[in-house]
Amino acid sequence: MFDSLTYQKRRKALREKMSNGIILILGNNEAPANYPDNTYKFRQDSSFVYFFGHSHPGYAGIIDIDNGKDYFFGNDVDMDDIIWMGPQPSVKELAAQVGVEKSYPFDMLKEIVGKAIAQRRKIHFLPPYRYDNMMLLEDLTGIRASMTKQHASLELIKAVVSLRSVKEECEIAEIDKACNVGYEMHTAAMRLCKPGVSEQYIAGVLDGIASSYGRMVSFATILTQNGQTLHNHDHSHILQEGRLMLTDAGAELMNYYCSDHTRTIPVGGKFTGRQRDIYGIVLACHDKALELARPGVTYKSVHLEVCKVLTEGLKGLGLMKGNTDEAVAAGAHALFLPHGLGHMMGLDVHDMEDLGQCYVGYDEEVQPSTQFGLASLRMGRKLQKGFVITDEPGCYFIPALIDKWKAEKLHTNFLNFDEIEKYKDFGGIRLEDDILITENGSRFLGEKRIPITFDEVEAIMNE
Amino acid sequence: MFDSLTYQKRRKALREKMSNGIILILGNNEAPANYPDNTYKFRQDSSFVYFFGHSHPGYAGIIDIDNGKDYFFGNDVDMDDIIWMGPQPSVKELAAQVGVEKSYPFDMLKEIVGKAIAQRRKIHFLPPYRYDNMMLLEDLTGIRASMTKQHASLELIKAVVSLRSVKEECEIAEIDKACNVGYEMHTAAMRLCKPGVSEQYIAGVLDGIASSYGRMVSFATILTQNGQTLHNHDHSHILQEGRLMLTDAGAELMNYYCSDHTRTIPVGGKFTGRQRDIYGIVLACHDKALELARPGVTYKSVHLEVCKVLTEGLKGLGLMKGNTDEAVAAGAHALFLPHGLGHMMGLDVHDMEDLGQCYVGYDEEVQPSTQFGLASLRMGRKLQKGFVITDEPGCYFIPALIDKWKAEKLHTNFLNFDEIEKYKDFGGIRLEDDILITENGSRFLGEKRIPITFDEVEAIMNE
Repeated sequence: MFDSLTYQKRRKALREKMSNGIILILGNNEAPANYPDNTYKFRQDSSFVYFFGHSHPGYAGIIDIDNGKDYFFGNDVDMDDIIWMGPQPSVKELAAQVGVEKSYPFDMLKEIVGKAIAQRRKIHFLPPYRYDNMMLLEDLTGIRASMTKQHASLELIKAVVSLRSVKEECEIAEIDKACNVGYEMHTAAMRLCKPGVSEQYIAGVLDGIASSYGRMVSFATILTQNGQTLHNHDHSHILQEGRLMLTDAGAELMNYYCSDHTRTIPVGGKFTGRQRDIYGIVLACHDKALELARPGVTYKSVHLEVCKVLTEGLKGLGLMKGNTDEAVAAGAHALFLPHGLGHMMGLDVHDMEDLGQCYVGYDEEVQPSTQFGLASLRMGRKLQKGFVITDEPGCYFIPALIDKWKAEKLHTNFLNFDEIEKYKDFGGIRLEDDILITENGSRFLGEKRIPITFDEVEAIMNE
Repeated sequence: MFDSLTYQKRRKALREKMSNGIILILGNNEAPANYPDNTYKFRQDSSFVYFFGHSHPGYAGIIDIDNGKDYFFGNDVDMDDIIWMGPQPSVKELAAQVGVEKSYPFDMLKEIVGKAIAQRRKIHFLPPYRYDNMMLLEDLTGIRASMTKQHASLELIKAVVSLRSVKEECEIAEIDKACNVGYEMHTAAMRLCKPGVSEQYIAGVLDGIASSYGRMVSFATILTQNGQTLHNHDHSHILQEGRLMLTDAGAELMNYYCSDHTRTIPVGGKFTGRQRDIYGIVLACHDKALELARPGVTYKSVHLEVCKVLTEGLKGLGLMKGNTDEAVAAGAHALFLPHGLGHMMGLDVHDMEDLGQCYVGYDEEVQPSTQFGLASLRMGRKLQKGFVITDEPGCYFIPALIDKWKAEKLHTNFLNFDEIEKYKDFGGIRLEDDILITENGSRFLGEKRIPITFDEVEAIMNE
């Protein structure tokens, strides 16, 4: 947790961006896995953490826009709780730690929200994503649980996005730390990646490192020799010599700040010629983004420039053809890169995704596309100093997609399907780093960069 | 997964125990951590796994009691799913794998349940514990989400409990495997337990082992030098020489079968005299349970015999006094052992806890107690061959509870508070193994027993 002033300042800034009414920020509760008391590791709501700091189930906060007061809701522990969970500070003390004077038992939330509703005051809340909180919102506001998301406050969403998008110095320091844990995870994976080792074994070790040095992984680890499957959470294979192992994994600190990196490395420790060809193109894409990303530039334009580097590279290998600008404008390259260049990162690995990607990654100036590939770009808008984003180009050979496009004769003026056929057993490559947008450009987050050049990767794999 | 016949047999057995109507078994969905698409590791509902085998979000099953037919619900994947998650078998194929002929898209569930309701047939469902399933049940049946639990079918609960309580050979083999992973976890903890190491580091390593060899931990690991706090999920301390580290941890295999073991070991690798005194008593309690547990004996009676061993031991140290039987009948020993001797284990670490402890651990013959301590005994009823239960006595010195009882002058005829005061810095000890009730007694589950004697523990810690 940061000092109480940090939270007071954030709530004041939020209040100033809003017109009137009360802002209701619900914390998360325990999430049952297979019965009510067997719960997953607790994960607080990120906006609650941002404005009210505390990481424990059963809390809520209210920020009153009109009277300038904040309220903290939670229940004090009883003797049973002390026996089972040990002594805990009082809710009054917890509230004081984040600069809130007024604290109440949780049940009072209904009374206070009810009073505001009776006074016809606007109740602003963020889109719920936990079903228990949807049911709580139904109980508090009378809106049907399944409809609560549609009643979230757009004014509040936009205000929260504008604050959380620009990372404070204290947040950047935490993200740097999370990236250091990410470094440990990825270098461990590089050392363990040998033919005959199971994907699951290595993925488990990464889970362990994330838990030993933070709270848990920031998302379900992708670790696979089938990197062509973009969100492959299957770890059932035994690594085979000659394949590529793609690892997309990150850590979440105890205070929830994240890391998110991807490396793709040759099982056996030596890139083949064909792997070097494709890897070199993806690395050039990655570097292109680093070269271009700076305040004032839209990330959509960076994405499109990167797609041109990819297209040029694939033309060099005979997989694509024709005019590069036209190919990218048509979306032909999306056969190989069906996802976007990156996303915001912070307290969430896809930062604020619960608030709506169209508000986090887009604005009036830059609107989401509907074109296959570009439509999956999560972050398109103009970069600002203090943004933390991922730079994660990739190049994949997805047999089912290749077959589909070939059958439909899509983009035949830009794609050499005969050549592409030869790569259907290739797999996929993605390279991802987390970067901070600075005054004049960007910098990597974390103390050391995870090995990425051919020499660096082969060196650590053959230590 | 087991062969299709296993699931067919189970559904047939369930059908035969029920009177009429349809049985609705909902699978689990993804559980969002901090936004809809960032989900915890998937955890299927155990009863769904038991009757329909498959471990994937978005499934449901119906067992029609009257017409003898089974139905499997789920959606086939589309091209987008294949790109992001790889090729998947069809729902028809999945259904066939578990011996179900009829499969439908998930949306058909509403039509089929609706038709049964219109025909005034009874809809049996188990108590929901996931809030999204409560909302789904509201949508299917019209019962308010928050009230669905109260409308669960007691007939179905009792039928499922009677089946799942007695483990089949194929299940026992899986629990043995889970216990082998537990062995790796606990022996790793013993090797890492040194002064200056953080609890969190070791707990993280255990998370990693559970993930490398199974799905995840079977419950949030308790690993603490403050063992007097019974469900202490705080791992924020650095281990100190002279303290005891209590580790209560288990693994869950990919198919969800569990392990659950506890060991308490001296930080630094050598038990002190006082630690030996208490540890020896707890070990004697543990052995007493092993000696008594067999078919036909109630676990409540075993629990009470164990409490007598505890009381005898504490009398020997001058912490308790008076008549042992009277002390145990009065519940005086519960100051040191406020929990029960054990619980059922299987697909859930507290097996079937979602169905209601009073149906799983009790029956018409043995009813739950309201006495402090005994009330926390999860398993009281008569043991049967094929039951898998935990044997987990403990002895704790909980300062807040000691202060409370002393102030209230509770059980002063059995408790020597002056002596007890001297142990307020002791911590707590618990020793737990998983046992199978056999024809004539019981056996440990897992290939090797985790070190438990003084010599075994000190040997592995000083390797």
